[in-house]
Parts: sequence; structure tokens; C-alpha cells
Amino acid sequence: MYRYLKRRTFEIVETTGTDSLGSRIFDSIILSLIFFNILALVLETVDEVRIEFSGLFSGFEQTSLTVFTIEYLLRLWCCTTSPHYRHPVWGRLRWMVTPLAIVDLIAVLPFYLAIALGLPARSLITLRAFRFFRVFKAGRYFESLHSILRVFYRKREALYISLMTVLILLLIASSLMYLIEHNAQPEAFGSIPATLWWGISTLTTVSYGDVYPITPLGRFLGGIVSILGIGLFALPTSILASGFTEEFELEHESQDAICPHCGKNIHTPADRTSAE
Amino acid sequence: MYRYLKRRTFEIVETTGTDSLGSRIFDSIILSLIFFNILALVLETVDEVRIEFSGLFSGFEQTSLTVFTIEYLLRLWCCTTSPHYRHPVWGRLRWMVTPLAIVDLIAVLPFYLAIALGLPARSLITLRAFRFFRVFKAGRYFESLHSILRVFYRKREALYISLMTVLILLLIASSLMYLIEHNAQPEAFGSIPATLWWGISTLTTVSYGDVYPITPLGRFLGGIVSILGIGLFALPTSILASGFTEEFELEHESQDAICPHCGKNIHTPADRTSAE
Amino acid sequence: MYRYLKRRTFEIVETTGTDSLGSRIFDSIILSLIFFNILALVLETVDEVRIEFSGLFSGFEQTSLTVFTIEYLLRLWCCTTSPHYRHPVWGRLRWMVTPLAIVDLIAVLPFYLAIALGLPARSLITLRAFRFFRVFKAGRYFESLHSILRVFYRKREALYISLMTVLILLLIASSLMYLIEHNAQPEAFGSIPATLWWGISTLTTVSYGDVYPITPLGRFLGGIVSILGIGLFALPTSILASGFTEEFELEHESQDAICPHCGKNIHTPADRTSAE
Amino acid sequence: MYRYLKRRTFEIVETTGTDSLGSRIFDSIILSLIFFNILALVLETVDEVRIEFSGLFSGFEQTSLTVFTIEYLLRLWCCTTSPHYRHPVWGRLRWMVTPLAIVDLIAVLPFYLAIALGLPARSLITLRAFRFFRVFKAGRYFESLHSILRVFYRKREALYISLMTVLILLLIASSLMYLIEHNAQPEAFGSIPATLWWGISTLTTVSYGDVYPITPLGRFLGGIVSILGIGLFALPTSILASGFTEEFELEHESQDAICPHCGKNIHTPADRTSAE
Repeated sequence: MYRYLKRRTFEIVETTGTDSLGSRIFDSIILSLIFFNILALVLETVDEVRIEFSGLFSGFEQTSLTVFTIEYLLRLWCCTTSPHYRHPVWGRLRWMVTPLAIVDLIAVLPFYLAIALGLPARSLITLRAFRFFRVFKAGRYFESLHSILRVFYRKREALYISLMTVLILLLIASSLMYLIEHNAQPEAFGSIPATLWWGISTLTTVSYGDVYPITPLGRFLGGIVSILGIGLFALPTSILASGFTEEFELEHESQDAICPHCGKNIHTPADRTSAE
Repeated sequence: MYRYLKRRTFEIVETTGTDSLGSRIFDSIILSLIFFNILALVLETVDEVRIEFSGLFSGFEQTSLTVFTIEYLLRLWCCTTSPHYRHPVWGRLRWMVTPLAIVDLIAVLPFYLAIALGLPARSLITLRAFRFFRVFKAGRYFESLHSILRVFYRKREALYISLMTVLILLLIASSLMYLIEHNAQPEAFGSIPATLWWGISTLTTVSYGDVYPITPLGRFLGGIVSILGIGLFALPTSILASGFTEEFELEHESQDAICPHCGKNIHTPADRTSAE
Repeated sequence: MYRYLKRRTFEIVETTGTDSLGSRIFDSIILSLIFFNILALVLETVDEVRIEFSGLFSGFEQTSLTVFTIEYLLRLWCCTTSPHYRHPVWGRLRWMVTPLAIVDLIAVLPFYLAIALGLPARSLITLRAFRFFRVFKAGRYFESLHSILRVFYRKREALYISLMTVLILLLIASSLMYLIEHNAQPEAFGSIPATLWWGISTLTTVSYGDVYPITPLGRFLGGIVSILGIGLFALPTSILASGFTEEFELEHESQDAICPHCGKNIHTPADRTSAE
Repeated sequence: MYRYLKRRTFEIVETTGTDSLGSRIFDSIILSLIFFNILALVLETVDEVRIEFSGLFSGFEQTSLTVFTIEYLLRLWCCTTSPHYRHPVWGRLRWMVTPLAIVDLIAVLPFYLAIALGLPARSLITLRAFRFFRVFKAGRYFESLHSILRVFYRKREALYISLMTVLILLLIASSLMYLIEHNAQPEAFGSIPATLWWGISTLTTVSYGDVYPITPLGRFLGGIVSILGIGLFALPTSILASGFTEEFELEHESQDAICPHCGKNIHTPADRTSAE
């Protein structure tokens, strides 16, 4: 009976995107709750709404904290059903350090800490947004998400080099711009840390227009930095693009390499197969 | 006679890009009418033009509504010529829910509703711009358009994950920025919904310069969001790029995929060849 | 003698990037002249420079016009040396309509027209910048340039569809924004043509910050348009990326398909070769 | 003894990312020193920090100059251990002109020159940021960095053509914009060199919002330039993307390129295999 209950709970709270009606309803409730939590947080910052519905927000928040806490404990209790986390103690600890379990814990723990310490923790509700990623556990998205993560992982060195190059360029460009524009605009380019704000907004082509060079030399440097900013977009984009193409090719190759007519792998040399 | 007339009408109003002179003239008239409809709408908003040519615009609009209505009814009438929509009732209903037929209906229906309800519907003319996509039905573009749509369809999960990640990042960044800048700039960063405007314009590197952080911490967060904005461009671009490359390779492969062991095309089903 | 002179002239003025010393010197002179022409035009617009060196600019311009005219006539005279343009009349006419010859003509003709009509034609000097493309006729760049042009040509339908989609989106977004913001900002969003300026600067993420929505609904639409703007970058980039990858693969395939050991094409089925 | 000391020094100062503890500690010290040098330079420009810690900065700078000088001399002394630079004189000279050795020299030489000439050389510290690239000598990053550089090298002509096209477009767009906007905004568009600032910030979509066209014709040209700006991003990105894909394919191919007819690797030269 206890066993059955645990397996049934596991089916409902853990598995996602299955045909089980209970699991689907549970998922919908949790996702709706996350959505309304965030919506509440967002709307609460609008003065008119906060004054009008003050009590409602507070009550909703306490309710959802309770629901998330119960949900987390249920997950923790029944995770031993999975063969990966079978051990009552070590299995549960290992489950606790999986990324999704950490995200679930972050959705509740800070609020208890805040209550204990008497601090306002309302703004931490944003962290619950991460729980939305749970939706990608469903079959259809699971493979795509893993594929994206594999590409990032496989290209991590090239992406890291891109990032480092950008940071070094940013530093050099900002130092030079500081030297050039410092005298002409002492407020906007008052120090190198302040000039970094110009540098990053130019390199990423964001540029709000609050700081910009006005001297001819400063504009010349600004133009060069703008063009280098294109490289900042081109490098990671092209690295990732080739990563995705490779991902497809490696997968495609291992899949389709069998000739459906003779059942042999088309990548093994013809003489090796004829020798059989 | 009735049959011949229907097939002839079908040839003129439905098929695009054929050698039939009637079909070509008809297409040109409809496309010109759409173009001038939109041009009229655009010019009508310029005060000097509206005052001068007021009557002309009104007359042109009524004429084109009549033409589009007749055209829609003709299409509806003769669509049963196509084997796909042969049934007089269900065939026509199925035709009505095809994307191009819906676009054609949108080009006329709202105006009758507006007249019936006594509302001004002039601005809905913009919706007619969608009818321009009809031009891509012509042979040359048809394959390219389908190829683009296939890539979007094949990559829909990865693109959806990209979009969700962006929205979650946007929400978290805007909430944090609200906390940081709220006290320094209560007007610009008055609430999280208001801060979302900053968030989206920074992540997409649009940034008009109407709202931007001024505190050091806010600028630090702004810099990080700007750099993440690059990822926002890099991710969909690289996903689509690999999608287009795959599209080409799959097509290319099916052209000359001969197994070197048995000499048969590996893409034709095994049972079909064994039946030979 | 005349023949020899013509062939010699042809070698000097037409062929680029060869080992011939005469040809190299000639190319350097012409390219330098183009460069200094453009530099002169640019500097002439700076008031202090124009007042100081007024006579110099005028003299330099007349000299270079003479040089370019003589050069064009020399090219026209000796182009019949090439087998493609052998016929004294038709060959020369066919040479005149090649892209590079048109660019050369544009570098001189407007100035004579301007002198004849008594108009100032100085600003047309910019058109001479196109002549810089001549530098890519040299061997090393020739293949790359052709490769880029081939990719654009092969993907022309997909790129055209991208452009049309952007223009239709731009029109619809601007019309909607006009309706939304017109009453709030009658100056900036005074008419749809004026709103197109907002639309294009948002879709391309340029956005100077001179016009932007201020109403909540306008900002919501602005956010959506900003995100669609990402697609505007992603679509042509990914189409071109797959185009360049295809270019490489098609070339690579036709090149390397011969096994250096047995001299057979590795793409022809093994049994076909064993039957020989 | 002298030999042993030299080889030991070489192991510590030259090799990177090995298991040798001495080498690791040395690398960490040098990288930390570079990091703090740059941090000091950046913080020194903040007025409050400079006044407070004036002596500290000066002392730290002199210390690190001494350390870097000793390190450079050590490297120069022991580089003859490597078989590439074995000769006591020519080997050392050849080592001095390697990119990393030049970067190391730039980190110290200008400061001695500045002291000799009595000039302030503090801002040159930024140049030390380049020394961070040393971190990529470590095994994991080495292959990725080389791969990126190979792609840039293989695509150098196509990238150069992209850059030239951009510069020519920039010049033509700015000249036209100068003609159009000069009368309406004589301050912002006062000369072509000044208008180039508008041109580059629009083409790269940076656009601070300090200069923008206000005439209808100027806005029309601005819109076209904005759309061309997309091409400026698309072209290098797609060229690099195909470059990275090629890189992967060439590498992948050399791994399992067996001819199905004779079973030999198609990438080993034919004469080498026939000699077997």
C-alpha cells in the first residue's frame, strides 16, 4: 500500500508529458501557479494595483509557498522510486543536487530564510521563473534542449576564447577612449570604469545615446570599435552555427549509415564486406 | 458549358505563374489593386493628401472592396474543380480554412462587419498586405518559401526554447533592474512592467535611449544584459543556419545516394526494390 | 606595329595582378588617382580645407578627369584584342555594357554632361568609389568574389522572400503603431509614412532615439517588433551561411572524389567499377 | 648544473598547462600580476581611489615592471633549450620575433623608454592586457584558438572583400547623406568626414542618437542604409559560419576517409602507399 502510494505519487509529481491524467493535471497546476506568482510579482510593483489588491497578493504568496513546499517534500519523498536515486539517504541527497531539484529548492528556501531573518524576500519570486524550464522535460523539447546544451558544451573553448577576446578588446578600447575623451567630456568619461559603460554599449551595439565621443579622434576610435562590435556578433553566431551543423551530421551519420537493401554499413569499405 | 466556364475561371483566378494569359492579367490586376489599396491607406494619413483627394480615396476603397468580394466568391465557387476540394459543400469548407483563403477572407470580411456595426474599418486595409504573399505561389519562389517554412517547422522546438529562454531572462533582468534603479529613477523604472520596456529594448539592442540605468550597479547589470543580448541573436541565427544546411544536405543526398555494395538508392524503401 | 602596340596597351590597361611591370604600375597609378579623387572630395567639404586649397582641388579634378577619359578610350580601343570582343564595332559595344566598363564610364561621363549643362557635378565623384572593385579582379580575390556572388545568386529567391516579408511586416507594424501612438504624439507619429521611419529604425535595431512609443500599448507593439527585428537579422544570415557551406561542399565533392590510389571516383558504385 | 638550471627554468617559465607544480605556480603569479596591473590602472582613474592610494599604485607599478623585466630576461635566456631556438644568438633573435615574445616585450619596453624620455607611460599598461592571451597556450584552448585563426586565415579574401564593400558603401552613403542633409542640419552634417560618423554608426546599428536625418529624403536614404547594415552583419557571420563548418568537415574526413574500392585512406599520398 505504502509502496503503491509512493509509486503513484512519483508518477504524478515527477514524470512529465506522459499520458497519465493525474500527472498532466498536476503539471498544469504547478505551471499555472508559477505563472501567476510571477504575474503577481510584476503587477505588485504597479502602485495602483498594489494599493487595490494588497491583501490578495499576500494571501496568494503564502498559499503558493505552502504548495511549492509540499510539492518539494513530495518529490524528495518519492524520488527513491527511480532506480537512479534508490538509496533512502544517498539517493535523496543525489536527487537534491540535480539542477531541476536545486531550481525547485530555490523556489522555496529563500523565503523561509527571509521569514526567519525578518527580511522582505518578495523580489526573490523572480527566481521561480527558472522553474519554467521544467516544461522542457516533456518528450518533444527534451531532445532539442539537450542538443542545444551539447553544442554549447562541445564549443565551450571557442566560446570562452570569444568572450575573453571581447573583454580584452573592451578594456583596451575603453582605456584609449578615456585618454582621448577625458578632457573633452569630464563627466561622461570621468574614469576608465565609467568609460567601460560606453565601451560595452558600443561593442554590443546597444548604445542608449547617453555617452558618446565628440572629439574627431574619439569618433575615429568609436567607429573602429563599432566595426569590431560586428565581430562580437559574428564570432559566437558562426561558432554555434557550425556546432549545430556538426550535431546534425554526427547524428545523421550514425543513423542512416545502413543500406536498407543489403543491410551493410555504407561507411565500411566494400572489400572488407566482400571478404566475409 | 457550366463545367467549362468553371474550369476556365479556376484556371484564371487560382493558378499562379502559369503561361495562361488570362491568369497572368488577373494576377497583375489583383496585385496592383492590393498595392494601390495599401498606398492609398498610407497616403491618406498625410493630412495634405487626405484633404485634397478625400472623395477619390473613398471611391477607390469601395471599388476595391467590391472587386475583392467578387474575386473571393469566384474562388469559392470554382475551387471544386481541384480534386482536393471536389465535394460541393465539404470541399468548399475545407478550401475556406486554407491559409491563403483565410487571408483572402480577412481582406474583405472585416469591412462588411464594420459597415454593419457602423465602425470605421479603414485601418484594417493593412491586413490586405498579407495578400502579397500570394506572389510566392509562383513556381520560382514556391520551392524556396516551402524550404524556409520546412526549416522553421523542423527547428520549431529549438526556436521555441530560444524564445522561452529570452522571455525568462527578460523577466529576471527587468525585475533585478527594477530593484536596482527604482529609487534612483522612479519615473523611468516605476514598476516591473515599465522596466520590461528597458529590458526588451536592451536585449534586442534597439535601445532608443529613453530609459537607461544610471547607478553603477544598474550599469553593471545593463552590461551583462547587453552581452546576453548577443546570445539572443546568435541562438536563432545559428539554429536556422544549421537548419538550412541540413535542408540542402537531405535534398542533395536523396539525389545521389547509391550504396557502393549493392548499387541501389538507399532512400527508396527496401520492399519496393525487392519486388522488382 | 599597330597590332603590337594595341596588344601591349591591352596588357597594360586591362589585365590585373599579372607579373607585367607595366600593368602593375598602371594599376597603381589608377587606383591611387581614384583614392586621391575621393579623398579630395571628402576633404573639400571641410570649410577650412576648401578655402585654403581651392585652386588645388579644381586643378586636380580636371587632371584626373582627363586621365580617366584617356584611360577609358584606351580600354575601348584595345578591348578588341580579347577574343570575346574581337569585332571592331559589336565587340566594342559588348565590352561597353560589361559591369566594369559601365563603372569606368560612370567615372567620367556625368562630368562632361555637367559641364555641357552648366551644373556642378563635383559630388558625383563618389561614384568613382565603385572603381575600387577593380582591385578584386586580381587572382586571389577573383575566386572569393565569384563565390560570394554565386551564393547570392543561388539564394536569390530565399533572400527576396526575406526582404518582402520584412517590408510587409514593416508596413503592418507601422500602420498599427500609427493608430496607437498618433493621438499621444501627433508630431512624431503624424502619418504612416512618418511612422515608417520609426518602423525601419526599430526593425533594423538602429533606433536613434528620435521617435519611440510612449503609450503602454505602443511599447507592447514596439517590443514585439524589436523581437521580430532579430528574425530580420537571423533569416538572411542563416540563408547565406547555408549558401556558403553548400558552395564549399559542391566544390569539395567535385574535386576530391577521385581516390589517389586506384584512380576511381569514390562516388560511383563499387560494382559498376568492378564490371569494367 | 648550469644546463640543468636552464632546463628547469625553461620548464617553469615557458611551458603552460603542464602538470609541473613550479610551472603552474609561476603562471598563476604572472597572470595575477597582469590582472592586478590592469585593475590598478582602471581604478587609478577614479579620483577618490587615486587620492587615497596614490603611493600604493606607484609602488605596485614599479614592482610589477621589475618582475616582468626579470621574467622577460629569464625567457630570453632559457629559450635556447627549445630545439627551435637552439642557436645562442640567432635562436634568441628568432624567439624575440614570435608574437608572444613581442607581447611580452611590449609589456615592459615602453616604460623604460618613457622613463628615459621623462614621459608618463602609465596608460600603456593597457597593452599588458594582451598578455592574457597567454592563457590560451594551455592544451584545451590551444586547438580551439588555432581552429579559429585557421578559419580567419582561410576566409581572409572573402572577409577582406566584405570589409572593402562596407567601406565603399559607407563612403557613398555618407557623401549622399551630406548632400541631402547638409542644408537642413549644417552642424551635424557639416562635412563628409563629419557625416561618416553618422554613416558608420548607422551601418553598424550602433547609432547613439546624436546625429540622424530629419528631411524625408534623408530618412529614406537612412532606411536603405539601415537595411544594408543587416548585410554588414550577415556577410561576415555567414562566411565565418561556413568556415567553421568546413573546418569540422575537413578534420572529420581525414579521420575516416577510406576508398571503398581499394580500402586505402584517400588522404595519404599515392606514392607513399605504392612504396609499401
